[in-house]
Amino acid sequence: MTQWQEISGGITAPKGFKAAGIAAGLKPSGKPDLALIVSESEAIAAGVFTTSQVRAACVDYCRQRLQKKANIRAILGNAGQANAATGEQGWQDALDSAKWVAQALNIAPDEILLASTGVIGQRIKMEAMEKGIPELVNALSPTAGEAAANAIMTTDLVPKSIALETLIDGRPVRIGGIAKGSGMIHPDMATMLAFVTCDGLVATPLWQQMLTEAANQSFNQITVDGDTSTNDTLIALANGQSRTPTITQMNKDGQKLQGMLTAVCQHLAKAIARDGEGATCLIEVQVSGTSDDHGARRIAKTIAGSSLVKSAIFGRDPNWGRIAGAAGRAGVTFRQEDLQIKLGDFLMMENGQPLGFDRDAASNYLKQAAAGAYLKQDTVLISVRVGNGSGQGVAWGCDLSYDYVKINAEYTT
Amino acid sequence: MTQWQEISGGITAPKGFKAAGIAAGLKPSGKPDLALIVSESEAIAAGVFTTSQVRAACVDYCRQRLQKKANIRAILGNAGQANAATGEQGWQDALDSAKWVAQALNIAPDEILLASTGVIGQRIKMEAMEKGIPELVNALSPTAGEAAANAIMTTDLVPKSIALETLIDGRPVRIGGIAKGSGMIHPDMATMLAFVTCDGLVATPLWQQMLTEAANQSFNQITVDGDTSTNDTLIALANGQSRTPTITQMNKDGQKLQGMLTAVCQHLAKAIARDGEGATCLIEVQVSGTSDDHGARRIAKTIAGSSLVKSAIFGRDPNWGRIAGAAGRAGVTFRQEDLQIKLGDFLMMENGQPLGFDRDAASNYLKQAAAGAYLKQDTVLISVRVGNGSGQGVAWGCDLSYDYVKINAEYTT
Repeated sequence: MTQWQEISGGITAPKGFKAAGIAAGLKPSGKPDLALIVSESEAIAAGVFTTSQVRAACVDYCRQRLQKKANIRAILGNAGQANAATGEQGWQDALDSAKWVAQALNIAPDEILLASTGVIGQRIKMEAMEKGIPELVNALSPTAGEAAANAIMTTDLVPKSIALETLIDGRPVRIGGIAKGSGMIHPDMATMLAFVTCDGLVATPLWQQMLTEAANQSFNQITVDGDTSTNDTLIALANGQSRTPTITQMNKDGQKLQGMLTAVCQHLAKAIARDGEGATCLIEVQVSGTSDDHGARRIAKTIAGSSLVKSAIFGRDPNWGRIAGAAGRAGVTFRQEDLQIKLGDFLMMENGQPLGFDRDAASNYLKQAAAGAYLKQDTVLISVRVGNGSGQGVAWGCDLSYDYVKINAEYTT
Repeated sequence: MTQWQEISGGITAPKGFKAAGIAAGLKPSGKPDLALIVSESEAIAAGVFTTSQVRAACVDYCRQRLQKKANIRAILGNAGQANAATGEQGWQDALDSAKWVAQALNIAPDEILLASTGVIGQRIKMEAMEKGIPELVNALSPTAGEAAANAIMTTDLVPKSIALETLIDGRPVRIGGIAKGSGMIHPDMATMLAFVTCDGLVATPLWQQMLTEAANQSFNQITVDGDTSTNDTLIALANGQSRTPTITQMNKDGQKLQGMLTAVCQHLAKAIARDGEGATCLIEVQVSGTSDDHGARRIAKTIAGSSLVKSAIFGRDPNWGRIAGAAGRAGVTFRQEDLQIKLGDFLMMENGQPLGFDRDAASNYLKQAAAGAYLKQDTVLISVRVGNGSGQGVAWGCDLSYDYVKINAEYTT
């Protein structure tokens, strides 16, 4: 029984949200580069940000704002310049950006959150930003979710957008989301941004708790190249316009909202991994048998992030030894005698003993899975069991191709 | 004032050591694949092994042996098959290998250590091994250090060997070493093996302590692709044939021996990084200003291991933003306002503020350094200061090129 269904509209599918995306001239290419998400009424905001010691001005700005108050009306996102490692000037640029949006929307500056993606060490083109913001506000529309998704892209090949709907107390509640990933044709563009909207009514601390849990099961479990960005940002707004009862604890309704929020985040996270630079397929790693979920997630992410595993998948090589090697170095204790490894339906190791398997057929599975010809999904599935514990976890990544190097070795200028 | 000088002879430079390297037919290519190092008299042995949960049989074997007794006569190394993830059969193969060497040398099996490198999940070709061992013992010679260095190579482009000599109590003491790295033209070959010989006289627990310290400042600070191997092994033998006084503590002589041991390990470690698969240059990252050395080493290794930094260096792109980004995500706390970044002599960030610099000249530095035309070294130097603490650390890596992917995407078969 599905608890929710997919609907159209993306980030503007929830009630009371508008969005816009325009080309303001921040990107040299002239493509859309400025996005705005606005809630008609005050929304509570939760955020998860990069853990890096070197953070963009917008990340510090959002953290400060959310510490003071969780009530937010708008999120401004820009692509082109990351405003990271830009010193005091970058901080002033963040303040100015918020001020201009506040003026155009006629709200207070502290009701605005900011997110940037682009080249590290470059200031935002502030003249273009100042000129673009009134135009951006004019473009706001309850059907412009896709335009916003487009405007936060850097070198993503496709925009990433999703909306789900469920019933709570008999009334529809919706969650929408957009994201951009780490397609880095231009060096230094390596940021994950994701914005989530929800028209459900939920208590502020619970909303943050839900978002953290959802992030742990989605964005924190994807890896393209292991490089955490200075700008990684996930912000979720909930404005209560569904007029459903306030969810204050993890009862049945709370679990339903949590599930739907996690599903939205997982959809966006997988879309980012599948669109990783140079990627030809999505890799899903399922790990079980650890004493807790944390350990299983860690092993899964280590396998999904291994350059050797990723290269082998690109070569369509059923190279289970590399999977065993990556599992072993994840920093989670297990007995090798308990190790089981499967690639698709091919069992390659059981009780720590290597098994004979049809290598050509397994390579063919990789070819088909990568081409989207296997179960109609472009997903390579790796399953690993390391014991009899109840812990389990999933991680997603992509293969490592020539194009990754090509994309990232090109000059900044 | 140099405390030691480089001498010829490699692993057989210290007194009382012989070595051999032959082609026994383990490698399909027919190249040398079996190496033996023998001390004429009992030597004390110290070892540092992979921390992976999935370990080769030889790693478990060496650990067990060294726990029981530290007195060792010989090390057998083979290339071609890693004997990792080979289950109980792999363990039996390890026991048999040691038995055959013991018979040929007429010593006890528990005086022998083992190390393997090659394809994970493949048994050693035991018939070839049994036939090759008597021939290997016949080939033992006090001048065959280079032959042993050749026989442990997998797809390393060059053998890695060094010997240093110092004076202790007026008499010469020598340390020699050989290593092989992670050149992985054949998938799954991803092992670092290093063997060190010393004719100094040193107490057993101190020798292990010295080796651990040397490893932390050398092999543990190099990264090619972040994939810890199932077989990583560093073994150091000291046989006391220098007839110098026993070193039992970290006095002046102890510090001299420690320094020379660290220098040998650093030489071998840098040689491995420079010869990383697909690499066009060595990258040295120097970090200072942390509260302790551990933090500085961690930041240095994170920068050296960043795929984005490595790709940029391959592209000869003076992309300091990526260096800042990698420093920030190393898991070590610092204030971005204290960050200083230099590439060669080019100062790019000071007090967390980006500085203007001559981009063409900086790119030219990278081109020259990578081509070995800068100070006659093929080393790109990255210097990072993160505060005023006294902690410092160095790490080494290589750039990430198309060839890395090519090498690692080829089929196992």
